[in-house]
Amino acid sequence: MKRLALLSVLLSALTARADEGMWTYDNFPSKKVQQKYGFAPDGKWLAEAQLSSVRLAGGCSGSFVSPEGLVMTNHHCAHSCIEQLSTKEKDFVAQGFYAQALEGEVKCPEIELNQLVQISDVTARVQGATKGVKPGKEFNDKRKAAMAGIEKECAAGNDKLRCDVVELYHGGQYSLYRYKRFQDVRLVFAPEFAIAFFGGDPDNFNFPRYDLDVSFIRAYEDNKPARTEHYFKWSPSGAKDGDLTFVSGNPGGTDRELTMAELQYQRDVALPERLFDLAQYRGALTMFTEQSAEHRRIAENALFGTENSYKALKGRFEALITPTLWNQKLEREKALRSKVNVRSGMRKQYGSAWDEVAKAIAMFQPRRKEFRFIEQGAGFNSPLYRIARDLVRGTEELQKPNEQRLPEYTDSKLPQLKQRLFSKAPIYETFELFKLSYGLVKLREELGADHPFVKKILGKRSPQELAEELVKSRLADVKVREQLWQGGRDAVLGSNDPMIQFAKAVDEDARPIRRWHDEEVETLETSGAEKISAAKFELEGKSNYPDATFTPRLTYGAVKGFEDNGRKINPVTTFGGAFERATGRDPFKLPESWLRANQNKQLNLDTPFNFCSTNDIIGGNSGSPVFDKDRQIVGLIFDGNIYSLGGDYGFDETKNRAVAVHSAALMEALDHVYGARRIVSELKSAPAGAASGSAAK
Amino acid sequence: MKRLALLSVLLSALTARADEGMWTYDNFPSKKVQQKYGFAPDGKWLAEAQLSSVRLAGGCSGSFVSPEGLVMTNHHCAHSCIEQLSTKEKDFVAQGFYAQALEGEVKCPEIELNQLVQISDVTARVQGATKGVKPGKEFNDKRKAAMAGIEKECAAGNDKLRCDVVELYHGGQYSLYRYKRFQDVRLVFAPEFAIAFFGGDPDNFNFPRYDLDVSFIRAYEDNKPARTEHYFKWSPSGAKDGDLTFVSGNPGGTDRELTMAELQYQRDVALPERLFDLAQYRGALTMFTEQSAEHRRIAENALFGTENSYKALKGRFEALITPTLWNQKLEREKALRSKVNVRSGMRKQYGSAWDEVAKAIAMFQPRRKEFRFIEQGAGFNSPLYRIARDLVRGTEELQKPNEQRLPEYTDSKLPQLKQRLFSKAPIYETFELFKLSYGLVKLREELGADHPFVKKILGKRSPQELAEELVKSRLADVKVREQLWQGGRDAVLGSNDPMIQFAKAVDEDARPIRRWHDEEVETLETSGAEKISAAKFELEGKSNYPDATFTPRLTYGAVKGFEDNGRKINPVTTFGGAFERATGRDPFKLPESWLRANQNKQLNLDTPFNFCSTNDIIGGNSGSPVFDKDRQIVGLIFDGNIYSLGGDYGFDETKNRAVAVHSAALMEALDHVYGARRIVSELKSAPAGAASGSAAK
Repeated sequence: MKRLALLSVLLSALTARADEGMWTYDNFPSKKVQQKYGFAPDGKWLAEAQLSSVRLAGGCSGSFVSPEGLVMTNHHCAHSCIEQLSTKEKDFVAQGFYAQALEGEVKCPEIELNQLVQISDVTARVQGATKGVKPGKEFNDKRKAAMAGIEKECAAGNDKLRCDVVELYHGGQYSLYRYKRFQDVRLVFAPEFAIAFFGGDPDNFNFPRYDLDVSFIRAYEDNKPARTEHYFKWSPSGAKDGDLTFVSGNPGGTDRELTMAELQYQRDVALPERLFDLAQYRGALTMFTEQSAEHRRIAENALFGTENSYKALKGRFEALITPTLWNQKLEREKALRSKVNVRSGMRKQYGSAWDEVAKAIAMFQPRRKEFRFIEQGAGFNSPLYRIARDLVRGTEELQKPNEQRLPEYTDSKLPQLKQRLFSKAPIYETFELFKLSYGLVKLREELGADHPFVKKILGKRSPQELAEELVKSRLADVKVREQLWQGGRDAVLGSNDPMIQFAKAVDEDARPIRRWHDEEVETLETSGAEKISAAKFELEGKSNYPDATFTPRLTYGAVKGFEDNGRKINPVTTFGGAFERATGRDPFKLPESWLRANQNKQLNLDTPFNFCSTNDIIGGNSGSPVFDKDRQIVGLIFDGNIYSLGGDYGFDETKNRAVAVHSAALMEALDHVYGARRIVSELKSAPAGAASGSAAK
Repeated sequence: MKRLALLSVLLSALTARADEGMWTYDNFPSKKVQQKYGFAPDGKWLAEAQLSSVRLAGGCSGSFVSPEGLVMTNHHCAHSCIEQLSTKEKDFVAQGFYAQALEGEVKCPEIELNQLVQISDVTARVQGATKGVKPGKEFNDKRKAAMAGIEKECAAGNDKLRCDVVELYHGGQYSLYRYKRFQDVRLVFAPEFAIAFFGGDPDNFNFPRYDLDVSFIRAYEDNKPARTEHYFKWSPSGAKDGDLTFVSGNPGGTDRELTMAELQYQRDVALPERLFDLAQYRGALTMFTEQSAEHRRIAENALFGTENSYKALKGRFEALITPTLWNQKLEREKALRSKVNVRSGMRKQYGSAWDEVAKAIAMFQPRRKEFRFIEQGAGFNSPLYRIARDLVRGTEELQKPNEQRLPEYTDSKLPQLKQRLFSKAPIYETFELFKLSYGLVKLREELGADHPFVKKILGKRSPQELAEELVKSRLADVKVREQLWQGGRDAVLGSNDPMIQFAKAVDEDARPIRRWHDEEVETLETSGAEKISAAKFELEGKSNYPDATFTPRLTYGAVKGFEDNGRKINPVTTFGGAFERATGRDPFKLPESWLRANQNKQLNLDTPFNFCSTNDIIGGNSGSPVFDKDRQIVGLIFDGNIYSLGGDYGFDETKNRAVAVHSAALMEALDHVYGARRIVSELKSAPAGAASGSAAK
């Protein structure tokens, strides 16, 4: 694999068979799997796995598990939806949700599913557009125009298709991913939060573990369950220690191929700053949720997300301060650069690449806070603002030809934009007020009370006063948004809505920073990264996988324990373990339904509950199916162990583990805790072994 | 100076005259001052300055400013006292405090003043005690016994003396500092918090600045104002641009002489971890203070302290990630090590020192969280716990001979311990509950839910439940503490107070970690550091100042502006500037008294308000007097600019600035805002120029 290829022969002999790699479906190393596990997936097998997998566009993964559009994912991937469907009177997060009949399935306001149907290579067209062009405005314009053009042609105005040009290998390759898009997605089943996230933040990213982090949702077309001929069948036995396992999902992003300059920026600047922010926000948000039951209800998913990000980024930070990893990467970069430099042709073409990347970072660093707070809106990052921003920017961008727009407002992005913009998800004024007051104070702190932008938006007002004005916005009303969107640029410019006016004022300052970032910084970084990638291809071929980009990837591995500070950790836990761990106090409090089922002796306490495996996954893989060589579901990814967090920078097979709910636990709970017969039958309806398509052995 | 001595001749020629250095009173570089500013303080001058200065034992500095024990310090140095004297009905923090007559001065429960009266060198005795002894238990026992013995002999049972053996140059020198101790200290005057801390956190560590961060307190003896023959007179004109200025105070700590291994630990581990903690606590505490006016009153000083620490440590972190500083330090260490290594005698004696230090850190790192949370009580750091811990540990330690006790319980430390233990400062149950709940959650997070200590103290209880049990403690009652202390070990062991029982349970686990830390880690680090220091003395003599240790130091410099991102910053602000900066909203809201005085045209808006100078100071210097060559008060240190935060690791004269209240602002406000005639007369009573002692020119 690429990141190990630069090590000595001796070392690579030891590591060649590691289960590392988040492989694209068009470059899966079946031979390697064959060598280590005696099984080689063939083209048909891969196509079936690909088509049976789905992406949740908001940031998760899932799988079709019946021919009628039933999708399995994590509870935490549908948490927003479950919260959005809840009310003060009926809290589905706390109580769980189960539609006894099809008619009871309820639409999630913001979930979009993507099923990858085709991959094509568009590298020549994208790179060709900027051939000979120096980094800068022209480079940016041409590159983005090419990508927008490709996407528009591909979708051809069909909202049921989603076409994304995906930058792989940091620009070494561009692929066009064509997805089938489902925007009518309904909630079918979710257990209580207390068992979905048993152990809460203390146990998050830990193993052993005891979570039923599952939800079932269903894709609909024309108001009927979608016909999904490609889907995963259910394994009758599930996974056990040593079994070969595949995971198909959408790892959100990794940084395994960053240059040392980029890594140093991550270690010293980007990660600490994000962590300082997250830590403080976590402290404030925890207190907010504790103010009342209603505050908890409306903010607990945000708190969960904040704590999760905090822990994940802290793990990444800790990986970067580990001298062994750092020195390994340093040596690899040195080795690659010297290989390039000793070949005069390569030196001429690629020799400057690392310095270009370093220069881009050096340019960005002094303005990073302005970019984050003004363009990215870090100080007023609330639904109301994001809506106003989309209305202000979107109506302006739509006046331009498709190829000249900001990428997030091109035609191919409009279906998702509209889903978000016209979402019926409730917006809570108290929570908005909290977020805006908090954020505006932070904005003033980070940019300084004397920064012209801060002076402009605050004037003599306190952050709290400005927040109070902004939440008077009428944008919580979906109809108001629809009117403004339909009214276009003029309607938006004429609006006296305080949040619209605020977003306009922000945009005056945000646009120039965005432009500078895209044209000066990003093009320089891309140009450098493309060269490094090309150099690697020239030296190593395409024997490696690209860094994760929240696009479908396939990984292989095996159910396997690990050693933790000298303790041997068994790879599989049981229901019994959960009852032992329970204290009766949140977050170690089992829900009533489980206590009752146990009291009534309905539960088999030996049922495998969670397990860990060597599959190479990362955030974004949440909800990914774990399946065997017959493509039968044996588990459901919902986490990684604490060592998996360093996986952002590299994979250490001795310790890095994916964590999944065992398929037997899912079936046992659905059946004996929740009496969800309808789902049980649907999952079991296609008899195991009768999988469509052949399983190559 | 030491830290520059290793640079090339060219470079040192450029920097030789920098105003760097926190000099001990027994090694002040009068010649350097003479060279640069044409004035050389002589022995008498130095003795007077030393005796006119005081330390606030809790972490600040101050100065005698009248022959009747009047002490000038910062508002934020007396904030705790002002808060402790306040009630729900009468909030002196918000409203300010002024004793119109002597009888109205009120005792501060926890302030102790120290006046340094004598310094003697005890290096031979301390280092002699461990001569030939390897790092470990014996080394620790002998070293601490020697120090305890020296301190006990010096104080000779007199509680009015305080004797501290001070470790300077990281163990290269040990000095015995004998102080006169004042424990009856009364509040005389404090302005409103709104003007003492105008600009709040946003302006903290910034310049230009507009703060009246002053308070006056008075030392008493035998219930009467102390007779203080050594004191600073008031300058009639105050400081102006370019003037030579001296600052006498107690910088808390610097890390300018750390090894690279220590610096890397700071950069990668210690500082980020502290910042993550502080950020989260800050978020939670901010929300706590916003819950009610009473919460604000009882917690705002804690919030101010948290925000201040956060900003200060963030500045230090930012200094360490600056490549130029880092590389400079790296080069210096390399140069020093190679100088040592080329001299065979030195190599044999000192060559291993850096590795010893690195080894000590490597040992400590994996157990650092246990040390912090169990021994240092980071998860239950509340007044109630600290009292219980002192009762539990103190009564146990007192059974041992003085030389065998933990250093904080030796005879010479008892007066301060008792002041703290029997302080009448109120303890608020709601705030205790908040702190304990918060901290116990954090403890579980950092050590992990499965850590034996966490399991032991929590059992099946939630952190919140345990906190609720603990605050039922009766230790808020001073009489209960007195009874337990007087009852000694048996009374404490027999107590069923929940916090006492908790502290006992903690101590079982804390003692072994403390022992391991003191005997294994600390002795190894000290042994290494002593060698490095000895090597430097051998090569450079004692031409340098030691790292700060919260002991009296004298610095020199000049009133001088600086450049900030290309903007030229004038060194002096005016009253008028404060009125321009005011928005009427907290923290930019001027108090009523100032608005009224201004309306009534009582204020001269051209009065100099704050100024900055090149004096080399750091946290702990708060409240330090700024004086001229005639030892007349021209200002009062209360802050440093943002660049001063990097001063922990090195001094950059181009940017690093001390920030002070101008003496004219103090006089104008006392006189025309507060009508504090009694203080004005007292300050002016000794005519300027009639300073006792001669000012050598």
